[in-house]
Amino acid sequence: MQFLSDNAAAVHPAVWSAMLAADAPDSPYDTDAISRELDAAFSALFGRECTALWVATGTAANCLALAAMVPPHGGVVCHREAHIEVDEGGAPGFYLHGAKLMLAEGASAKLTPDAIAGVIDPIRDDVHQVQPHAVSITQASEYGCVYRPAEVAAIADLAKARGLKLHMDGARFANAVAHMGCTPAEACQGVAALSFGFVKNGGLGAEAIVFFDRSLADVVRYRRKRAGHLQSKGRFLAAQILAMLRDDLWLQNGRAANAAAAEIAAAASERLLHAVEANEIFLTVSTQERAALRAQGFSFYDWGAQGARLVTSWNADASHVDALARAIRAL
Amino acid sequence: MQFLSDNAAAVHPAVWSAMLAADAPDSPYDTDAISRELDAAFSALFGRECTALWVATGTAANCLALAAMVPPHGGVVCHREAHIEVDEGGAPGFYLHGAKLMLAEGASAKLTPDAIAGVIDPIRDDVHQVQPHAVSITQASEYGCVYRPAEVAAIADLAKARGLKLHMDGARFANAVAHMGCTPAEACQGVAALSFGFVKNGGLGAEAIVFFDRSLADVVRYRRKRAGHLQSKGRFLAAQILAMLRDDLWLQNGRAANAAAAEIAAAASERLLHAVEANEIFLTVSTQERAALRAQGFSFYDWGAQGARLVTSWNADASHVDALARAIRAL
Amino acid sequence: MQFLSDNAAAVHPAVWSAMLAADAPDSPYDTDAISRELDAAFSALFGRECTALWVATGTAANCLALAAMVPPHGGVVCHREAHIEVDEGGAPGFYLHGAKLMLAEGASAKLTPDAIAGVIDPIRDDVHQVQPHAVSITQASEYGCVYRPAEVAAIADLAKARGLKLHMDGARFANAVAHMGCTPAEACQGVAALSFGFVKNGGLGAEAIVFFDRSLADVVRYRRKRAGHLQSKGRFLAAQILAMLRDDLWLQNGRAANAAAAEIAAAASERLLHAVEANEIFLTVSTQERAALRAQGFSFYDWGAQGARLVTSWNADASHVDALARAIRAL
Amino acid sequence: MQFLSDNAAAVHPAVWSAMLAADAPDSPYDTDAISRELDAAFSALFGRECTALWVATGTAANCLALAAMVPPHGGVVCHREAHIEVDEGGAPGFYLHGAKLMLAEGASAKLTPDAIAGVIDPIRDDVHQVQPHAVSITQASEYGCVYRPAEVAAIADLAKARGLKLHMDGARFANAVAHMGCTPAEACQGVAALSFGFVKNGGLGAEAIVFFDRSLADVVRYRRKRAGHLQSKGRFLAAQILAMLRDDLWLQNGRAANAAAAEIAAAASERLLHAVEANEIFLTVSTQERAALRAQGFSFYDWGAQGARLVTSWNADASHVDALARAIRAL
Repeated sequence: MQFLSDNAAAVHPAVWSAMLAADAPDSPYDTDAISRELDAAFSALFGRECTALWVATGTAANCLALAAMVPPHGGVVCHREAHIEVDEGGAPGFYLHGAKLMLAEGASAKLTPDAIAGVIDPIRDDVHQVQPHAVSITQASEYGCVYRPAEVAAIADLAKARGLKLHMDGARFANAVAHMGCTPAEACQGVAALSFGFVKNGGLGAEAIVFFDRSLADVVRYRRKRAGHLQSKGRFLAAQILAMLRDDLWLQNGRAANAAAAEIAAAASERLLHAVEANEIFLTVSTQERAALRAQGFSFYDWGAQGARLVTSWNADASHVDALARAIRAL
Repeated sequence: MQFLSDNAAAVHPAVWSAMLAADAPDSPYDTDAISRELDAAFSALFGRECTALWVATGTAANCLALAAMVPPHGGVVCHREAHIEVDEGGAPGFYLHGAKLMLAEGASAKLTPDAIAGVIDPIRDDVHQVQPHAVSITQASEYGCVYRPAEVAAIADLAKARGLKLHMDGARFANAVAHMGCTPAEACQGVAALSFGFVKNGGLGAEAIVFFDRSLADVVRYRRKRAGHLQSKGRFLAAQILAMLRDDLWLQNGRAANAAAAEIAAAASERLLHAVEANEIFLTVSTQERAALRAQGFSFYDWGAQGARLVTSWNADASHVDALARAIRAL
Repeated sequence: MQFLSDNAAAVHPAVWSAMLAADAPDSPYDTDAISRELDAAFSALFGRECTALWVATGTAANCLALAAMVPPHGGVVCHREAHIEVDEGGAPGFYLHGAKLMLAEGASAKLTPDAIAGVIDPIRDDVHQVQPHAVSITQASEYGCVYRPAEVAAIADLAKARGLKLHMDGARFANAVAHMGCTPAEACQGVAALSFGFVKNGGLGAEAIVFFDRSLADVVRYRRKRAGHLQSKGRFLAAQILAMLRDDLWLQNGRAANAAAAEIAAAASERLLHAVEANEIFLTVSTQERAALRAQGFSFYDWGAQGARLVTSWNADASHVDALARAIRAL
Repeated sequence: MQFLSDNAAAVHPAVWSAMLAADAPDSPYDTDAISRELDAAFSALFGRECTALWVATGTAANCLALAAMVPPHGGVVCHREAHIEVDEGGAPGFYLHGAKLMLAEGASAKLTPDAIAGVIDPIRDDVHQVQPHAVSITQASEYGCVYRPAEVAAIADLAKARGLKLHMDGARFANAVAHMGCTPAEACQGVAALSFGFVKNGGLGAEAIVFFDRSLADVVRYRRKRAGHLQSKGRFLAAQILAMLRDDLWLQNGRAANAAAAEIAAAASERLLHAVEANEIFLTVSTQERAALRAQGFSFYDWGAQGARLVTSWNADASHVDALARAIRAL
């Protein structure tokens, strides 16, 4: 009974079908008919003109988007626990040619305008200090918490006032939108580029970089190739993404994962380290309790000395979820 | 009737089967059971201990391998028409942090020890000039020609004598081995790392970097993640590669593509710009002849003002190949 | 009456004399007779074989040294207020090709083994997290405090145990040695490379990178040229450095600056934010008090809302120092 | 009797005087009064508003200027024998973050519009090939030949038409202007940024980057610091440059070096490999003749198997020049 991560979960049958259907001769890279549908599909989803490019991983999506916003001598404000800072193996340093991540604090890995201002206001406006050029936030955050539309808008306002571009790492954008019940557009107001994740949500190996600031896309086209991310059979990545958008499969999958998390959270309400607003649950559990859960067949990551991280997937097995909820209640 | 490229051809059914079979829960990235089979599979194939890592593209394979061989202040000798120089969007400059490609000449895009020496001998041994650290050759070459074992060995000897590592871009390694009828090991003697291509040969989106110098692999593990190429569902890349190795499918596919090319070459023997030793045919054809072929439904790339490049795939349609051969004869 | 910084102070007459004397024809770059004396001069000073290279600035010295210790995918542990983090315009990101600065805390901008361990111990040993390769400490620290020999040795022991190289930013190494009264060797035990500063101490535009781990020097030779730091008239940089080493001028100048700082510190003993162990004084002073000092002709930088930084130079004017000490007492 | 290079020649007395005069307390980096005079001084010289920054070396000047013109995924067209390609230790790869040098041919190391077009016209306008963003020419060229105003203008026209910025490496700009007798502005029409060399012409360690396209200067300010080239006692670099501009000392020195070269060239008119238009003479001389010259006390570099390079300096000793001219005639 796996609650380790959503990042290696099964691929949704509709994604497989779309991939198999894409296996007809077409032109290479992103010149095929399927890849050329992406812009229209995302423009329809967000209700505005946007440009979308596929890449295989969230790390590539995040770093390519940021590389179009930040010169090598600039900086990006992000949370101290942001994925780009903690878990991307230094990829921002690589893609941004040595630009600096400027770390801010904030509860549940969420930034606020004040936290951002607290980082950038003390920076002297001279050449001795790296100047910020962008802000990156994660939706849902690394602790499974969600930025409300007004929170994103407030950050976007600050960013705009300071001449910074706003990037959103949406590895779990689906879960965030599913939680809020808002439109996808409302969930990322003022964002210049969104890394829209599918791999954790039923995809195989395709994410989208969605550019609301379309002027950023051309640089990323060159940088994607230069990074070895322009797959020659790109139609199979585009097909995955379109399958996920069709009939809002991305949203259904997000809802399913969230529902499983909510059930577990309800059983653990007094143990929660963070509000459960997506598909991740961070709990206080003792060493003995962790051992007890594992003895019953549940797998998950420790979180510090007295905690655990549990992640649910789009295809969470209801009986496993029920069992876990019961097991936690019984601790 | 497509003879544009092998890079967007269909995916082999055995590859699809292996991918579908891999869709069971497993651990992420390259910690899954399938990824962990790669080292043994390639060690068996090459008859010696080697380490193998998957990546999605040949560009990433080439550049990650070279990045482990060459410091940012060093250089790589390659052919002036090498894929890494001409068609990777500057990826070597990115992955190698500004290291230099040092361009050598040679018939049919093949290097020789003399050509390599001609590039590196004039380099003064001082800090004002970039010093070479590696040689990269392409097997089969960008003009579809093959390095015989003795040719590779001679280059490897020179490289070793000069303290250079030898990299082989094997985007069409299968075609080269199929042409020579030698063992895969014989086709890359003295090579430190091989980019073993599968995408042009029936794969979907997986290539292998095979390290015969296993000390290079650890750096590449870090660099692969840092480049956003460590896919979380890596089992699907590993599954593709293992499917291609099983029962020598890679070799069968290479032979099939070569046979189609040979049939066309036989029909065009007086027009050939290069020996046809793999699955690419470079022809002299006039503007009118190109138009005539296209009018009959054949698609291909122009090659200069009076030439054409035709590429056959693992699943070349026999009737299309026959038709093309007849059409060329009839010009 | 300038107490802004030591970095733009006058050049010592002995340095001018040495530069003028060096203006005879000689070979370019670092092949001249004067540059070739550096290794011996520093080996004599430190009582062990070392290799020394000149560069124009401390930023270049620090970053070239670190670039020889840390691969692009690695990291360097330093203090959150280290000069390399705060005041070098992102130069480490440039020279180290995107490697990461890993920030530790510590009183008075000094690191301790515990603080370093606190940063590196939580790093998972996997490719998702950047791995540390070096530690950099500043002697004297950015708050004018000095690492005792035992403190450096303890950090060096930890670094060695963890496989990390130790770098020392010695922009004010002279002041540190002058304060401790130890030998220069005692002040940097276990250090692999020292940026030995002269510009703040009477030089014009020359610092030395001293390699105790001589294997690092060769890479730096290439990187120095590649960074445009191999001046063709390098003899004038070497001449400055030799002039500073002759008769321990560096130490005399350091003592003079320290003595001036000590006199001011004595007058401000109840206001000190940090121990005054070099030539920098950090004081608590109110806005009104700052204005009062400035009205008397003293220039200095504010340090936060209620503080000031005062820096003394090798040629501090005794009457200015006396006047400042009196003025502080009279506040 | 040194004819090896101008790059290690003596420093002009006026430069020394200006440096010594600059040794009064002032603010650090480029905020001092002398540095702030540069813009006006160069604007007067060129008869138009321009921005000028000092750096210590020509390599830094060239690479910082180019880095402001070319993104990491772009390219720079230059001559195959350009200093940036051959003799800067890979600095363009470092400063431009892996951008590509695109090599063109041309007699005497000079580019022409046709040669540039020959390099860029075949580049496909797609992401697989690096796109050019700038052209760099050297005035005088690496073979001591000069671009006439009309030649520069023709290149500038092509560059403008193709959306490329034009950079001029003016390491020997003084010699070029002296040769042509034109105004400095005429010698670099259409140039966006000029590396104006002084070190080979009587300076100690200061070159100017002159921005006619002033929008490029701000990025270079950040990049200069980030490269460790913002010296804290920058007033001494500015002082050198102003001393060279005063009373056209740069031009007088250029004329003196040229005159010495012309005298030697006149004695070697049947041996010249390139026209002598600046201060470099490339001769055909046999091994025995080289030995004979050296036996008489002349030092110079071999140039290939049967050639020599002789360079004259601003302070060439008339008796040495006469002696060399006689010796060549007597061969």
